[in-house]
Amino acid sequence: MSLLVIGTVAFDAIETPFGKTDKIVGGAATYAGLAASYFYDKVKIVAVVGDDFPQTEIADFNNHGIDTEGLQIKQGEKSFFWSGKYHNDMNSRDTLATELNVLADFDPIIPDNYQDCQYLMLGNLTPQVQQTVIKRLKNRPKLIVMDTMNFWMDIAMDDLLETIKLIDVLTINDAEARQLSGEYSLVKAARKILTMGPKYLIIKKGEHGALLFHEDKIFSAPALPLAEVFDPTGAGDTFAGGFIGYMAKVDTVNFHNMKNAIIFGSALASFCVEKFGTEKIKNLAEAEVNARIQEFVQLASFEIK
Amino acid sequence: MSLLVIGTVAFDAIETPFGKTDKIVGGAATYAGLAASYFYDKVKIVAVVGDDFPQTEIADFNNHGIDTEGLQIKQGEKSFFWSGKYHNDMNSRDTLATELNVLADFDPIIPDNYQDCQYLMLGNLTPQVQQTVIKRLKNRPKLIVMDTMNFWMDIAMDDLLETIKLIDVLTINDAEARQLSGEYSLVKAARKILTMGPKYLIIKKGEHGALLFHEDKIFSAPALPLAEVFDPTGAGDTFAGGFIGYMAKVDTVNFHNMKNAIIFGSALASFCVEKFGTEKIKNLAEAEVNARIQEFVQLASFEIK
Repeated sequence: MSLLVIGTVAFDAIETPFGKTDKIVGGAATYAGLAASYFYDKVKIVAVVGDDFPQTEIADFNNHGIDTEGLQIKQGEKSFFWSGKYHNDMNSRDTLATELNVLADFDPIIPDNYQDCQYLMLGNLTPQVQQTVIKRLKNRPKLIVMDTMNFWMDIAMDDLLETIKLIDVLTINDAEARQLSGEYSLVKAARKILTMGPKYLIIKKGEHGALLFHEDKIFSAPALPLAEVFDPTGAGDTFAGGFIGYMAKVDTVNFHNMKNAIIFGSALASFCVEKFGTEKIKNLAEAEVNARIQEFVQLASFEIK
Repeated sequence: MSLLVIGTVAFDAIETPFGKTDKIVGGAATYAGLAASYFYDKVKIVAVVGDDFPQTEIADFNNHGIDTEGLQIKQGEKSFFWSGKYHNDMNSRDTLATELNVLADFDPIIPDNYQDCQYLMLGNLTPQVQQTVIKRLKNRPKLIVMDTMNFWMDIAMDDLLETIKLIDVLTINDAEARQLSGEYSLVKAARKILTMGPKYLIIKKGEHGALLFHEDKIFSAPALPLAEVFDPTGAGDTFAGGFIGYMAKVDTVNFHNMKNAIIFGSALASFCVEKFGTEKIKNLAEAEVNARIQEFVQLASFEIK
């Protein structure tokens, strides 16, 4: 059994009110893979990079126990690059540059020894590629989690709707839930989205936490209020990776475990935003992670008899 | 022992995407008083109305066990009137009309038999009047909760700062916390505000719930996701009234009880927005309130060993 993460492995250049980076390593599969590796030890990634991608970064994945056999390295080509600038409120950003490079014709090849995948994380990518991965797995995984974004709703809604028919858990933010459903109320939006394929819907609300919808049940997870949010890049991917990593660890798919998985994912995401890029989530001690999870328990607990 | 609520008792005319009302009864003391009366039976109000205020509405207060001896009725004058129109997102609104009328020279007279007040709710009003009430009480109440808004920060910041020195709990929304502290991060904002007088700070985030800050502790309360938000008017006052009503009922001031009080206040506020004005919170059965509180328990509960 293993956990397969597919998504981008890329370079980002980020500007926030607190500073600016040169090209640093980013990408959905990078964040999600690293996050998942804190809870589960058989994480494998499928992604594509150019020959500009440093071997040391691949070694970092391997040091986290991440299998990179499915990481294609295209000679003579360049890795995907994104550059963005966050506004003062850190909730909105402008994209300064997007260079698809190797991503333009990414064919997600699944190595044979990835076919034991029981947990599949479809990181943010074109819905077509996400769907191809599902179809190339000989056995349907126990749990398929998919992240996506408004961009695909704008330009590839039909593909997106086809793909979400095949998945179990969809993670999107509140604006995206409204866009996808055409409903302003998140309760109504969730009801509609749960008829589109996913059995579970996670609505990510950033600093306001997350909502999990399943059948007629709702779970509201808090976000940890932070004194400093340094760089929000990758927080959603980190959340999703932590979520599915925890699910793979407990290996029983139900609402109860998903609630905990959301807390574990939120805890890792709360670390992610404390430094630029992957800096913080590359080097977490287990005790640090456990202490943060206990902070979430304290934060949300009350006792009414 | 009793719970004193001071604030406006007034007329509102409200327009939302769902409809429009003529003049209906509103005001901070109306909502807070009604809400508090669900948890505590010795609620007394101090407010002022004109002779246009219907006796039947005063009878409604009394039917909820609310003492109206402190409700001044000014002959030949008109009640405070506010009219507003909510935008489609229900989170922002335009004020269409504000007629101060009797409120212009409101002198909050405290009847003698209100001097047993141990719980004081200072509903949104000029900080000067809120301060006068504190000074006119012969014994300092066990708990003083104050609600205020950005309007007073704009035009009466010095008075506001003087008044919050004297209170225990301040309830404001996230934008107001940022305005009052000059800090964007709510954690930093809270740290600063907790040096200004209040020992507890509640930051109301509407559909995103509420945060309670005290010393170095934080509690994050969820909001119940609702399919329909019909009219948000009075939700904050209802929250505050439910909060202090529960505190008066349990009669021990500590962080643990305040967490529950926030859930009780949130439960009542979730009813408030389901109909126009006070319509819903005037007629709640105890079983209905208890069931709603259990919904909050379900909504927020998770179990991590």
